[in-house]
Amino acid sequence: MILTVTLNPALDVTYGVGALIPGSTHRIRDVGVRAGGKGINVARVLAGFALPVRATGFLGGVTSDQITALLGQSTVEVCFVPIAAETRRTVVVSDGVAATGFWEPGPAVSAGEWRAFVAGYPGLLDGVEVVVLAGSLPPGVPDDAYAGLTTTARSAGARVILDTAGPALRAGLRAGPEVVKPNRGELEEVTGQAAPTPRQALGAARLLRNDTGTAVVATLGGDGLIASTMDGDWRAALPAALPGNPTGAGDACVAALAAGLLRARPWSELLADAVAWSAAAATAPTAGTVDPGCAHRLRPSVVVAAI
Amino acid sequence: MILTVTLNPALDVTYGVGALIPGSTHRIRDVGVRAGGKGINVARVLAGFALPVRATGFLGGVTSDQITALLGQSTVEVCFVPIAAETRRTVVVSDGVAATGFWEPGPAVSAGEWRAFVAGYPGLLDGVEVVVLAGSLPPGVPDDAYAGLTTTARSAGARVILDTAGPALRAGLRAGPEVVKPNRGELEEVTGQAAPTPRQALGAARLLRNDTGTAVVATLGGDGLIASTMDGDWRAALPAALPGNPTGAGDACVAALAAGLLRARPWSELLADAVAWSAAAATAPTAGTVDPGCAHRLRPSVVVAAI
Repeated sequence: MILTVTLNPALDVTYGVGALIPGSTHRIRDVGVRAGGKGINVARVLAGFALPVRATGFLGGVTSDQITALLGQSTVEVCFVPIAAETRRTVVVSDGVAATGFWEPGPAVSAGEWRAFVAGYPGLLDGVEVVVLAGSLPPGVPDDAYAGLTTTARSAGARVILDTAGPALRAGLRAGPEVVKPNRGELEEVTGQAAPTPRQALGAARLLRNDTGTAVVATLGGDGLIASTMDGDWRAALPAALPGNPTGAGDACVAALAAGLLRARPWSELLADAVAWSAAAATAPTAGTVDPGCAHRLRPSVVVAAI
Repeated sequence: MILTVTLNPALDVTYGVGALIPGSTHRIRDVGVRAGGKGINVARVLAGFALPVRATGFLGGVTSDQITALLGQSTVEVCFVPIAAETRRTVVVSDGVAATGFWEPGPAVSAGEWRAFVAGYPGLLDGVEVVVLAGSLPPGVPDDAYAGLTTTARSAGARVILDTAGPALRAGLRAGPEVVKPNRGELEEVTGQAAPTPRQALGAARLLRNDTGTAVVATLGGDGLIASTMDGDWRAALPAALPGNPTGAGDACVAALAAGLLRARPWSELLADAVAWSAAAATAPTAGTVDPGCAHRLRPSVVVAAI
């Protein structure tokens, strides 16, 4: 079983428009709604691959009902902790070429709500082999939240993947998650190293792994990914970048990492899966979805090189 | 008592941004939410003037709960008919200069839901002297909906103000509402006459009144309004147009017309109120709100001229 934690989920709303014209009014014909937030996205991808997955985090207000109903259409086991404030929405306006996003602020979580989450969390680890801690922290949740959740998961024998940024990433790393998955910007931010090329990104990843003992898998968009692990360093990519929508590719990568840890796959196999799942997400007609058949077809093309 | 009918209400959401940049992601700090739709806006303005008002229409889904809760903060008596589909939202992105709107489509109303509304409507007319029928019709509601609701209201002894456009306006006019309130574009569309100046707008309004027997009050933005009635024709305006946000000015005008009919005010007084309430809406810091004190201060400046 994989447990994904999404402390700051969102209802992701997509508006399709012919063209976005600032200052004018757009009548929307197509409204897409999806349960969102990194951990929820990871859970949905895993469920699409028929893997057992449980999702937790905070949900509040009417958006909570919508997200719960949407997740109810999948096989994801839904175990969220209620909060009084309203879960945020994100609105993306898509004209078929560019996506313009509007991110509402996360709802405030009270000290009591955070305590309730921490109290219930060990129970959710029952039967869990891999924990995914993903996304930003809402107001009211302490910066070291992921550190505590990592420590508890490790004590329960689970392996932890952390995908976040800034202070939450730095604090979380101190508790020794098994893998972190920064993107290029997050890797640069946490290491203070510029990483414009895969070679420089690998240098930064090595630095981070040496400092922390945590394997680093960094997603580099069309450049694929690089990994620095205890078992070696790799670069994995398709021979040529596929055009597409990068939204959700990072979450698909995390899902593949979680699936690989669950199945105890060797790094080279696991990283090839990660590239294939990410590329399938990037080329999907609906942002953030992964067609397992597409990932399966792309998989043999992925080149994994030990460095 | 005034009854407002909003068959296609909305939750109006406002996102404040520093600048709207297509293709980029905006982190929103200020999220405003308001119960919306023309009839609901009219009801809220009337409640702000301490006038007795009841609001009806259709509400569905989680947005229904949000709108009901927001209206619960006012003195509006809330009597909506539930529908299975989700009530729409509108999103307006405001950078302090321009407003960029995204209008979700209205929810589908089933034949049974429309029958339920029609069956309950006479009961809502109890004690009602003025009925405001306002806004667009959602999918599933017939074009002649406002005609039937006008006939029923008139039979119950109520006076009817109709504020809509297109086929719903044309069909509604056949049932003889007492007043219609088109804006310039709606007046041009329903009469087929260009009305770029107040004089031409008055010509079109006279044509429409002669054809239908309904008084026509047309709002012309900064040009104030013109009216063609059985008791004469008027132009009413402030000496100089005030800068501001026109959103909600038309609804404030309808609210003033409803208040004037309720109090049996003479047209010249009623039209002066309508200009003052509209101008107060246009200059309000929050779009669509009307400060009675502001309307009261503007009122003596309004110039009403019989034509």
